[in-house]
Amino acid sequence: MSLPSTLTLAHHLVEGVLHSGSLAVDATVGNGKDTLFLARAVGVSGQVHGFDIQQEALDRAEERLRAAGVAERVRLHRKGHQQMAETLPPDWRGKVRAVMFNLGYLPGGNPTVITRTDTTLPALEQSLEWLAPGGILTVMLYTGHPGGKEEADRVLEVLKKLDARRFRTVCCQTLNRRQAPFLIAVSKSGKTV
Amino acid sequence: MSLPSTLTLAHHLVEGVLHSGSLAVDATVGNGKDTLFLARAVGVSGQVHGFDIQQEALDRAEERLRAAGVAERVRLHRKGHQQMAETLPPDWRGKVRAVMFNLGYLPGGNPTVITRTDTTLPALEQSLEWLAPGGILTVMLYTGHPGGKEEADRVLEVLKKLDARRFRTVCCQTLNRRQAPFLIAVSKSGKTV
Repeated sequence: MSLPSTLTLAHHLVEGVLHSGSLAVDATVGNGKDTLFLARAVGVSGQVHGFDIQQEALDRAEERLRAAGVAERVRLHRKGHQQMAETLPPDWRGKVRAVMFNLGYLPGGNPTVITRTDTTLPALEQSLEWLAPGGILTVMLYTGHPGGKEEADRVLEVLKKLDARRFRTVCCQTLNRRQAPFLIAVSKSGKTV
Repeated sequence: MSLPSTLTLAHHLVEGVLHSGSLAVDATVGNGKDTLFLARAVGVSGQVHGFDIQQEALDRAEERLRAAGVAERVRLHRKGHQQMAETLPPDWRGKVRAVMFNLGYLPGGNPTVITRTDTTLPALEQSLEWLAPGGILTVMLYTGHPGGKEEADRVLEVLKKLDARRFRTVCCQTLNRRQAPFLIAVSKSGKTV
C-alpha cells in the first residue's frame, strides 16, 4: 500500500523534529525497533534513554542496537516509564525532542504483561513536562488485546483535552480495518530550541 | 509548531506517491495552491487536470501557475468535479496517482458557493475508480461553515466503509481545537504502476 502505516507515520513525524545531537526517549523499548530508529535519528552526538520492565525486551533491544553499531548512544533502564522523571538526567528537563510510546504487550513475549493505564498516564504527563518546545510525543495504541480498548480510551481522553495554547494533539487512524492500531501525536508549542 | 498541519500532512502523503511523469487531479482548484503543489510534484513530464466551477478560482490559479512557470503541465476545467470521469482523457482511467479534494468554499471568495455533498460524493466515487493501484486520494474537510459538518459526516461515512481489500482509509485530525479541518486519505491497493 502506498499510504504509510500509522507506525511509519509516527516515524516520519518524529524524524521531522530530530536532528543530529538531539535527546530522545523510548518509553516502551519492547523489541527495540523504535529505540534503534531513535538512536539512528539522533546521530553520533545524540542520546536516547529507553525504559522497559522486562529483561527479555531489554536484551533483545541491546542486541539490536549492538548489531547496528549504535548501542553507545543509548542508555536502557529496567524500569517502568512512570519512573522517567526520576531517572533521566536532570538537565534533560524541557530539552527532549521526541518521546515515543508503543503501548500494549511485547510482540512474541508474555501477553499478560501489558502496559497499564495507571502507569501509562503518569508517564505521559512526565513526557509532556520534559519535552522541549517544538518537540513531539507519539503514542501507538492497540485495541485488540484485553484491556487495550480501555487504555486507548483513557489515553485519548487525557490527550485530547490538553491546553491548545501549549500543545497540539493529532490523531491518525485507519478507519476501514477493525482494531487497527492508531497513532496520537502531541507537539509542544513554543520556539524550537 | 513542529507537528505538520493536516494540510501539510496531505501534501507529504501525496508527495510520497508522485514522481516525475505522474498524472494527478486537483478536484477543487480554489486558489490554486494544491494545483501548484501537484504541478511541481509531477515534474515537466507529468500532467495535472484541475476542476472548479468558479471562474474567479480558475483565474487565480492560472496566474499562480504561470508565475511559477508550470502552467503548461496543467489543464484547468470550468466544470464541477462530478464531471471528472467524462472530462479526463480516457487513457487516464486507472492511472491517476493522486487526486486532491479541499472541500468548503473559496477563501476570500463568495462563501455561499460551497461544495455540495450531492456532487462531492459522485466525484469521490469517480476518483477512486480512476486512481492507479498505489495511488491516493486526499480530502480536506472543514466543519466551520454552514453545511460543512453535514458534508464531512457524509464523506466520512462513505469512505470509512470502503472495501478493506481494495482501499485503506486513514483519518488524521487535530483533537484539541474546535472545528479544526481534518484529512482523510484513501490509498488504492494493488501493485504500484
